[in-house]
Amino acid sequence: MGNITMSMSMSLDGFIAAKNDSPDEPLGEDGQRLHGWLFRDSNKQYNQVMEAATKSLGAVIIGRRTYDNAHADWGDYGPADDVPSFVLSHDVPPEHNAKMTFVSDGLESALKQARAAAGNKSIDLMGANVQQQFLKAGLIDTIDISIVPVILNEGVRLFDHLGSAHISLKQLKVTEGDQVTHISYAVVKK
Amino acid sequence: MGNITMSMSMSLDGFIAAKNDSPDEPLGEDGQRLHGWLFRDSNKQYNQVMEAATKSLGAVIIGRRTYDNAHADWGDYGPADDVPSFVLSHDVPPEHNAKMTFVSDGLESALKQARAAAGNKSIDLMGANVQQQFLKAGLIDTIDISIVPVILNEGVRLFDHLGSAHISLKQLKVTEGDQVTHISYAVVKK
Repeated sequence: MGNITMSMSMSLDGFIAAKNDSPDEPLGEDGQRLHGWLFRDSNKQYNQVMEAATKSLGAVIIGRRTYDNAHADWGDYGPADDVPSFVLSHDVPPEHNAKMTFVSDGLESALKQARAAAGNKSIDLMGANVQQQFLKAGLIDTIDISIVPVILNEGVRLFDHLGSAHISLKQLKVTEGDQVTHISYAVVKK
Repeated sequence: MGNITMSMSMSLDGFIAAKNDSPDEPLGEDGQRLHGWLFRDSNKQYNQVMEAATKSLGAVIIGRRTYDNAHADWGDYGPADDVPSFVLSHDVPPEHNAKMTFVSDGLESALKQARAAAGNKSIDLMGANVQQQFLKAGLIDTIDISIVPVILNEGVRLFDHLGSAHISLKQLKVTEGDQVTHISYAVVKK
């Protein structure tokens, strides 16, 4: 089976969105600075790494809040073009992008469907809430964090609602970017 | 005047001590893993950087909680040998290390005394509470963070009680260590 992965841009103090995130401002007030590095040419080296990750991508599991905030931008495409996408949600919106499969019977069901779609390829998780659920369940294999030089103080925390047990990581790779530091970790399984 | 600096080892989720820190366990339960990289030979390169920082050090300002937790280890020496050390504290303990100056009339007074002692050399801040007070007051010039591959979930947060305004940083230098990533930042002054 392929790895289950997550990849996030995070402030130095652990936020992946500033306060008051909404469909108009998915990253919160002035939170778009968390993704500024994506649009700078000098990150070509890292972009190649990301392209390789995209090639090995077999399915995406998306949280409902992330879907609500981002689907207007995705338009007729999913978050990763033709890669099968599954939205974890309690209900199915009456109108939605036909490329998305809505899963309302829980995490295990979404994972099962994503595994079937991905084959040996990896499954990427989108949205802090879904990532937290998978991390707490011990299901994530690798975590890619892009640390952005800002202290946001408020907003949506990436590592939250995870209980009290320490989660050990193994640092795999560090890449210095232009005003961003990319670190890849493996989750140490118990 | 020299820079005002702070240097901390932090978990990926922003904690500088695990839960239940005490004089017996200053870094909390199993929190000593945050400092494990300090004792690995493969960090010689970074140690040289730290030695250079120590040479430019003119004074240290220490929080009372840090003093209480650490002074037994320091013994007759301060946290940095002969460097003048000032402890910010509401009261002065009846018995204390003679090398420490206790300051009970506030942050500005401690800074004034440290400036006088440091001359053109830098002033290092020790203890999350003191660092937070200086950071909120816009007084810190550089922040060195050593990011340790663990998610602690609970404990003492480094960036806390700072209000709601974003604090912009400039990423100066990234050093990949053995299971640690060192990042140096300058605080962007408004």
